[in-house]
This record gives sequence, C-alpha cells and structure tokens, in this order.
Amino acid sequence: MEMESASHEKAGLLTRLWTCLKPLPGKLVSKVAGVARKIKKLGQDDPRRVIHSLKVGLALTLISLFYYSRALYKGFGDSAMWAVMTVVVVLEFSVGATLGKGLNRGLATLLAGALGVGVHHLASLSGGIGEPMLLGFFVFLQAAASTFARFCPGIKARYDYGCLIFILTFCLVSVAGYRDREILELAHKRISTILIGGATCVIITIVVCPVWAGEDLQNLVALNLEKIGNYLEGFGGEYFRTSEDEECKDDKSFLQGYISVLNSKGSEESLENFARWEPGHGRFRFRHPWKQYLKIGNLTRQCAYRIEALNGYLNSGFQAPTEIRSKIKDVCTMMSLESGMALNELALAVKKMTRPTSADPHIEKSETAAKTLKTLLKSGISGDTDFLEVIKVATVASLLIDVTNCTQKIAESVHELASIAHFKSVDPTVSPEKSQLSQVKLAAKVDCPQVSITVRESSPSSKESGNSLAPTAVPRVVL
Amino acid sequence: MEMESASHEKAGLLTRLWTCLKPLPGKLVSKVAGVARKIKKLGQDDPRRVIHSLKVGLALTLISLFYYSRALYKGFGDSAMWAVMTVVVVLEFSVGATLGKGLNRGLATLLAGALGVGVHHLASLSGGIGEPMLLGFFVFLQAAASTFARFCPGIKARYDYGCLIFILTFCLVSVAGYRDREILELAHKRISTILIGGATCVIITIVVCPVWAGEDLQNLVALNLEKIGNYLEGFGGEYFRTSEDEECKDDKSFLQGYISVLNSKGSEESLENFARWEPGHGRFRFRHPWKQYLKIGNLTRQCAYRIEALNGYLNSGFQAPTEIRSKIKDVCTMMSLESGMALNELALAVKKMTRPTSADPHIEKSETAAKTLKTLLKSGISGDTDFLEVIKVATVASLLIDVTNCTQKIAESVHELASIAHFKSVDPTVSPEKSQLSQVKLAAKVDCPQVSITVRESSPSSKESGNSLAPTAVPRVVL
Repeated sequence: MEMESASHEKAGLLTRLWTCLKPLPGKLVSKVAGVARKIKKLGQDDPRRVIHSLKVGLALTLISLFYYSRALYKGFGDSAMWAVMTVVVVLEFSVGATLGKGLNRGLATLLAGALGVGVHHLASLSGGIGEPMLLGFFVFLQAAASTFARFCPGIKARYDYGCLIFILTFCLVSVAGYRDREILELAHKRISTILIGGATCVIITIVVCPVWAGEDLQNLVALNLEKIGNYLEGFGGEYFRTSEDEECKDDKSFLQGYISVLNSKGSEESLENFARWEPGHGRFRFRHPWKQYLKIGNLTRQCAYRIEALNGYLNSGFQAPTEIRSKIKDVCTMMSLESGMALNELALAVKKMTRPTSADPHIEKSETAAKTLKTLLKSGISGDTDFLEVIKVATVASLLIDVTNCTQKIAESVHELASIAHFKSVDPTVSPEKSQLSQVKLAAKVDCPQVSITVRESSPSSKESGNSLAPTAVPRVVL
Repeated sequence: MEMESASHEKAGLLTRLWTCLKPLPGKLVSKVAGVARKIKKLGQDDPRRVIHSLKVGLALTLISLFYYSRALYKGFGDSAMWAVMTVVVVLEFSVGATLGKGLNRGLATLLAGALGVGVHHLASLSGGIGEPMLLGFFVFLQAAASTFARFCPGIKARYDYGCLIFILTFCLVSVAGYRDREILELAHKRISTILIGGATCVIITIVVCPVWAGEDLQNLVALNLEKIGNYLEGFGGEYFRTSEDEECKDDKSFLQGYISVLNSKGSEESLENFARWEPGHGRFRFRHPWKQYLKIGNLTRQCAYRIEALNGYLNSGFQAPTEIRSKIKDVCTMMSLESGMALNELALAVKKMTRPTSADPHIEKSETAAKTLKTLLKSGISGDTDFLEVIKVATVASLLIDVTNCTQKIAESVHELASIAHFKSVDPTVSPEKSQLSQVKLAAKVDCPQVSITVRESSPSSKESGNSLAPTAVPRVVL
C-alpha cells in the first residue's frame, strides 16, 4: 500500500513538474520572438543604425591588423592597444560627433603629453622622495583644475571629452614616467597610435555612408514644423466635428505628433553642437548658421506649448453649441488650416533649402482670417447661448490667434535663415510640380466631410502659392 | 631734412604702436578678471563642484601610489595604468552615476574578459593564418552586435557604458592575446586593477561629502513645483495691476522661474537613472519609487506649458476693463494664489518627505474659487464692454481654471508618492511652526497693495493648513 501511494505521489510530482515545465519552451520561444521583433523594428526604423554597427565592426577589424601584422606590431608593440581604444571610444554615429571626439582626444593628448613630460622633467630634478611628492602635487592640482573646468557650460558643451583625456594623459605620462624612464618614447607611441586610431575613425565615418549631424538637425527642425503643421491642419475639422460626422474614421496620429516637439530642445542642441565640428559638405558650408535652426526650434516649441493648452479643449468632450459653431467654424478652421499649411511649406523650404516664399500666401490668409475672427468676436457671438460655453469656444479661438502669431514669427525666422544661408529661390511660374503639396492635401481631404468646406475655400490659395517641391516625407531622425 | 623727417616718422610709428599696445594690458586684466569672476560664480552657485574637483584630485593622487610604491608596482606593473584610467573615467559627480559606471565597467570587463579568453582559445586551435582570420571575424561580429544593442532605448539608458567597455575589453583580450601568450595573466591584471580603481572611486564618492542623485532629483522636482507655485502666487497681482499700482517695484524674477521647468525632462530622467543605482541612504530605501518623481515632474511640465500660454497674456500690455476687473479680480487672484500656495506646500512636502496634507485646504479653496468663477462666467460678465476685451480676460480665466485642474492632478500624484514611499505624517495640532509658510507669504505681501485683498482672504485658510515646516529655500540643483 505504502509503495503504491509513494509511486502515486511520485507520479503526481512528475505530472506537476511537467505542467510547470511544459509551457516554458513556448514562453521562451515567444520571448525570443518578441526580442527579435524589437531588434527588427530598431533596424527598420532607421537602417543607418545597422550600417553604423557594421562600420564599427569594420574599423575594429582593420585596426586589429596592428596586432596581426608583424611589421606594424614591431613598430608600436603594446601601444597598439591605444589605437584599438581610440576606435572604440571615438567612432560615433554622426560625422560631427566623431570629429569632435577625435579632435578633442588628439589635441588633449598632445597638450597633456607635452605638459606631462615637462612636469616629469621638473620633478626628476628634485630626486629622491621629493620626486613622487612633487608629481603627486602636480597630479592633484591638474586633476582638480581640469575637473572644475568641466563644470563651465561652454567647456562642458564642446570640450568635456577633451578635459577627461587631458587628465588621463597627464597622469599616465607624468606618473608612469616615474617607472618607465623612456618617457618620450612612451608619449610618442601613445600620441601616434591615437592619431592613427582617430584617423581610421574619421576616414571610415566620412567615406562609408556618412551620417551628417547638420543634416539630421535640419531634418529634425523640419519634421517638428511639419508635426505642428499637420496638427493645425487637422485641428479645425476635429474641433468642430459633430456627432453626425463620427463615421469618418481617419487616422488621428497627427494629433499626437506635437508631443515629441515639446521635449526636443536637448536633441536639437546636441545635434547643433556636433554640426559645428563638421566640414562643408553637400549644400552646407563650413560655417553654416546652425544657431538659426535652434532659434526656429525654440519658436516651434513656443507654438507646441500653446497647442498643448489647445489640445486640452479638443479632448474635453465638449461640443460647441450649434449657434456659435455656425458663426466661427469656417473662419477658425480656415485660420488653423492656413497656419498649418504655412508651417508645412516652411518645413519643406527648410528641408529643401529653398526660400520659403510659398508659405507667404498662407501666412497672409491666416492673418486675414485672424482679423475676421477678431471682428466677429468684437461684434459678439454670444446670442442666447450659455456664456460659459461661449467662453470655452472663445478661449480656443483666442489660443488659435496666438498660434497664428507664433506661425508668423516662425516664418520670419525661416526667412532670416534663408537669407543668411543663401537658400536658392524658386520661380513659382516655372515649376511643373506647382502647388503639389496643396493638391495632395486637397485630394486627401475631400473624402472627409467635416473639412470639405475648408478645403474648397483654401484650394485657390494653394494654387497661388506656387510650391514647386514634391511632398516627400521628412525622414526619421535618430539621435 | 630727410633725417629729421625719418626720425619724425619713427617717432610717429612708435606713438601709434604705443597707442595700440597701451590698452592691451588693461584689456587683458579685465578679461582675466572676467574669467575669475565666472569661476568664482561657478563655485558659489554650487560649492559641491569645488568639493568634487578636490575629490577627483585626491582619488588620482591615491591611485598614483601604484607607481610610487615599489611593492605595488611589482605586483601589477604597467597594468597599474588601468587603475588610473578607471578613476579618471568612473568618478562622477553623484554616487549613483559613479556606481552605475563602476558596475558597468566591472561587469562588462569580467564578461568580455571571459569571452575574449574563450574566443582566443578557440582561434588558437585553428593555428596558422586561420587564427587571425577567425579572431577578426569574432571581433567584427561582437563589435557590430554590441554597437547595435546600444541603440536599444532600455540598454542605452542604463548599460551604454557597459557595452562600450564590453567591446573594448573583448578586443584587447582576444586580439592582444595573439601576441602576448600570457593572456590569462593579462586578463587577470586588467580585471583586478579595474576593480581596485572602481573600488577607490566608490569609496571616495560615498565617504567624502557624498552627492546623491536621488536627493538631487527630489530637490529638482520640489524646486520646479516651487517655481510654478511662485508664479501662480504672483500672477493675480501682476495681471490685475492697474497703472496706479505701478509704484510698487517688487522683484519680478518669480515670473521667469517657470521657463526652466519647460525643459527639465532630460535632467529629471538622467537623475532618475542615476538614482536607481544608489543604495539605501538617509531617508531613502534602495527601491525608493523614483519613477513617481518623474510622474510628478511630467505633470508639473503640463502645468508649465499652460503657464507659458498664460504668460503671453501677462506681457501683452493689455489692461482688463475696470468693469470686468472688479467682477473677477478677487476670485481669479484667489484661485491663482491658492493654487500657488498648494504647489508650494506640495514642494515642501516632497522636499521634507512628509504627507502633503497641508496642501489640501488650498486645493479645496482653489477648487471653490474655480467653481465661483465658472458661475460668474455663466451669468455673463460682458455688460457694455467690448466683447473682444471680455474674451481676452475670459481666456486668462479659462487657462487659470486649467492650471487649477493641473494642480489637483499634481496633488494627487504627490499623495500617491507619499503613500508608496511611506512619508511621515505631520500632526497639524502639535507643531509650533504651524502655517509658517503662509505667514511668511502674508508678511511678504502686505506691503504691496495689489495683492492685499487676496492675502486678507487667504490668511484664515493658511492658518488652518497646519504646515509644520519652515519655509527653507530648496537648494540649487546641479546636473
């Protein structure tokens, strides 16, 4: 009996173990599949990531030749390690970042190497116990001063890595020289291997599918303008949508785009910082006015903050009373749509580096609409409706007027950029693709009833605008 | 004659040279003085910067003992360099950042070292030309895979540095092993010197005046709440100020404070990332709910975006018509002041880690004021005045109601934080410092006529609030 119950127990244990373990392979497979999907998405989102990874692999394989080739290894010996280290640390995603780090590393090594040799010489004069004490004092002084310098915002932004390498090289050369008397050879080897490593990085980053930070900055600024533009183009239709219009289930992702604009300051600043290291390339000169892109970016964020306030009214579930809606719907939608189209034209102008003349008619129309709205509001729109509801609609109108003012400022700063950076002008009468942007927008919107009035109103203006540029999507930007 | 004119010319040249050179020393002195002032300001803004610089100097001087002491140098030889390098790279401003980098460096070195030794062994089995080819293949594969992994957001945030060190160590151990056959000794020396360097950094950063990233995060979140609170407390007085009130020239810097809140997301996220590496210390447990601080930070920014929209109306130079002003001034100022006081109480609660019960009465009062305002607006405030002016004032009122809603959400999330992190509760009846915050505010404002009504109205509520905490300023946060 006992044996039977024991074997039963054993069988029960095994069954339970089996039920526990059975789903494990399935779970593992699904987890691995999930990770694989994520990896695939990372690569698809920006194929330049895959290329960059292969570039790093290539550079490291090339630099390992120092060890494999007998002739090279004879010349540098263990210092070849510095070349490997330089490649790992310096090779960054964009040309600007790589150049910045490479120059920082090279110059800091040269400077600190020279200073280290000098200090080593000075300390060796004192001899005996005085030498390590003097060396220690200099190391302390230099490390503390350089570390403090890294807190200075100007130095932190551009030379932070240089300061780090300065401390490192100074310590290595001056202190290691205490044991290794052939200090000049040590410094020379370190410097030459670092230069070789740095040169490898710079050549690979420029020659093999270069990623220019400046171009990324330009695309990011254009993309942000486009996101705000798309929001504004769709806002009127969304806000004045009635329950009958509900059947039109179009993609609402354009209403979320502005959120990423709110926190884009850091990315823009770091891209601008990298872009300043880049040499002239393509349509960019060496001293391209990168700062102006930051100015446009700041104004775009100003606009996005107002849209964040506006968006609260869109999501409140509140529907404007019919009486007010009929009074201000057309003019509000027109103002919002024209501002949005102006921003989209500006985005295209920034991206294609052409003068943003095609945005001007839209700006003018949005200004006119704003004036009409003000006159309408002045005459009073309340009628018999609940005043609180009037206030809600009026707040939206008031914020929209604010946004229109922001759009004007953005247009001014894009014009400024175009004149500083000598953007080429486009002849509105020649281009066969004239007003393509507006036409595409028109085609996309005629199916959706709630914006049809607006489109009809805005289409003649779009034809006047003379936009000669195909509405290509701004490519994804990776930071 | 000629000689005379030549000597005249010479004298003229010398005079001109003198006029050119004379101001140079003065300019140099003023430039040096300017730099010295900047350095002094950097140190005064946050004395922890000076301490950190001295800490780096101390750590490097200590680690140089490897070279000075004969016994230590015998044991490690040139590998002592890795200890110096580790100290330079790993010692960061805050404990969390240092620990994060140190652990990343230590673990990545261990892992990559083991893998490098394995790959080296595998390659050496093939021998001849096959060895460098196989090594090259593995280096390429590993570098490309690790570099690609660095693009994954989760890895980038916490293990970016680890990936870099993984690539570096793997290359050094596997490739350098091709020449240096004592590869195990190489790996062992590298790992032990890195551990010694890392341990030095961790000990110095924790023992000598530690800077905790978690505390900085808490202070930053509290400071941002305080900035928004100060803006709101002053807003009513500023907006409804008439030209007769102009003589009250108080400090207006509180109106600019919110601007830095708009772009604080990056700083908050990096501090949270560092804080997660930190062990329990002071009032913080190891798994303190740091994510909740990010949530509060996000809501604070939502509030700041609305204030940015509101601020446009403050600076427009527009003065509300007397009729409307008299109707809504008190209730708007009350709502704004109470919201501001609530935020300041919440900031204090976050900073002092107490339950934010003292903010609740202010929240209630601001809600009541918002309701009153809504009723007022519902009944209509227009009268005979220009409707456009009514709209302008109504928009401000509407945005203020939005801000009040935001404040409620912030209060809820601070309550949530207090309950998750077990903040201590404060007995409102015991404390002798009861309502000190409100009293200080009252004292500060009675001199300024435009807010005197508000203060009189809000003072009883402040006395009920039972805030037991001294209104100490939140210290400056350095990132």
